Amino acid sequence: MNELDIIKTISNNIKYTGKAVKAIGDDCAVFKLENQYLTITTDMMFKSTHFPEILTPFQIGMRVITANVSDIAAMCAKPLGIVVSMGFNYPKKEFIEELTKGMDFIAKEYECPVVGGDTNKSKELTLCGTAFGITSNPIYRGGEVGDDIIITNNVGRVYCGLKILEMKDKGIIDKNGFENLLNEYPNIIKKLSEPRARVKEGIALNKYVNSCCDVSDGLGKDLRYVGNFEISSKKLLNAIPKDVIEFCDRFDLNPIDVALNSGEEWELLFTTKKYDDVEDELSGLGTKSIKIGKVIDDGHYIDGDEFKFGGYIHKWSK
Amino acid sequence: MNELDIIKTISNNIKYTGKAVKAIGDDCAVFKLENQYLTITTDMMFKSTHFPEILTPFQIGMRVITANVSDIAAMCAKPLGIVVSMGFNYPKKEFIEELTKGMDFIAKEYECPVVGGDTNKSKELTLCGTAFGITSNPIYRGGEVGDDIIITNNVGRVYCGLKILEMKDKGIIDKNGFENLLNEYPNIIKKLSEPRARVKEGIALNKYVNSCCDVSDGLGKDLRYVGNFEISSKKLLNAIPKDVIEFCDRFDLNPIDVALNSGEEWELLFTTKKYDDVEDELSGLGTKSIKIGKVIDDGHYIDGDEFKFGGYIHKWSK
Repeated sequence: MNELDIIKTISNNIKYTGKAVKAIGDDCAVFKLENQYLTITTDMMFKSTHFPEILTPFQIGMRVITANVSDIAAMCAKPLGIVVSMGFNYPKKEFIEELTKGMDFIAKEYECPVVGGDTNKSKELTLCGTAFGITSNPIYRGGEVGDDIIITNNVGRVYCGLKILEMKDKGIIDKNGFENLLNEYPNIIKKLSEPRARVKEGIALNKYVNSCCDVSDGLGKDLRYVGNFEISSKKLLNAIPKDVIEFCDRFDLNPIDVALNSGEEWELLFTTKKYDDVEDELSGLGTKSIKIGKVIDDGHYIDGDEFKFGGYIHKWSK
Repeated sequence: MNELDIIKTISNNIKYTGKAVKAIGDDCAVFKLENQYLTITTDMMFKSTHFPEILTPFQIGMRVITANVSDIAAMCAKPLGIVVSMGFNYPKKEFIEELTKGMDFIAKEYECPVVGGDTNKSKELTLCGTAFGITSNPIYRGGEVGDDIIITNNVGRVYCGLKILEMKDKGIIDKNGFENLLNEYPNIIKKLSEPRARVKEGIALNKYVNSCCDVSDGLGKDLRYVGNFEISSKKLLNAIPKDVIEFCDRFDLNPIDVALNSGEEWELLFTTKKYDDVEDELSGLGTKSIKIGKVIDDGHYIDGDEFKFGGYIHKWSK
């Protein structure tokens, strides 16, 4: 069974939704409490599949918190806290120290304390976080026709960072070449190893946007959650930073494809008819707002051509 | 590092607690929201360490929900929902169907819907649940001097069920002998394979009790959470059902030791000065209330002797 079959089987059998306002199908599950909404998300990570080898234990700790908190930000909610269950395979004390220091450091930055967890013996490092947040107005996926489609800051660097790791693993570059690239592209490596959830941005956006999600699988997949759209590659170029353009030029990559395939960016992808307000709010946080297209009545287009979801994914793995 | 070292290292490094009313150190983490409290708990389970081999996939699904919801019940809170992350190692469709049907079935019984999750590829079946509940009055661990110490229903059957599995694994009984025991002790097997979280009991107890926890590690360990106490083995005998007494007699076990070492019973262990009210409330739910001792000023005693926490644990493994 592939992942889609598994998810379909699960969805077919989990039928009871009780008093949930939203069960599956968005960044978070949502419950109404008195005058507020509780938003909850969970994300499980395994050493062999989830952590680029370049990450330090401290950065792994940051990452499990960030991946979860990003879904709270994607609801434009305020994080309340997170619990993290951990499975270890004969860990060293130094590893656990650095891992948990990384969690604590970033939890403080997000004002989202780690308040509980569970520890177990496991066959490989396994981390499962569950974050919860509060908002009076949860923002779901799916924009309104006529909305601008906007992303925060930039996209593309994570893809390039993984490309550097891949070139090393495939022997295309040697150890020196690898070290040189790490030094030449510090912002690419930084985004790969210490991405940030856009918590303050999500809270600031709450009253201006009609839909919001985070860029976790890459724009080429996450655009699904916007609804019907037309995207302009020329506009999307504005969201691609100079180092990515330079890296693409050097290694013969198409920057648009790179931008569409760059996952775990944790930038926010949202839609609004109030671009000017959004830009004001976000620039106050030092965050850019890049228009990349519009929500339309029907269909999915890029530069007038039909947009193929995730069609870009396998292009680089041949 | 053993589990205690790991937990200590984690606790030393996770320092930021934000606005949590209670972070680590109880059955749940607790946050105050408007006029209510949110309680959260998480529990991660691996196939090789957490599920008795006798469990069906349906019962495994029930178990991950029950283990988590039991901690909500231990706060005397009302479950709101649960998210479950799942790691699979080449699962069959039938397995996932039965697993998720078991989750859905018991979620409905507890009125605690499964509202989200995450799926991954993993080296072995890995399930991580995070349940959350609501209460206006969270009940913590630690009783008041003079409180009666009470458990719901009975304890001991889970230990006996695991003993049956152990006898089979060690070749002490053959396949026929094993099947016969399964048939002779249906209530022992039922408690091992389909234990229930005491959700209704927890809610009903809320206004009468001074402390509450659940019996997860076995009374011999969980009594730690009560505070100082004196326990009477004669009273504890009242909490041991007849089939356990008979099983102990047949296989030369001490029923008091069995009762103290029987984990994952998910009964509630609570303290109160209002035993009569408690008994009324719980009998209305068909649930027994068994007094086993008193909270005292200082020390831990059983029948006047010093109580050795967990000292019973290794007795049966020599």
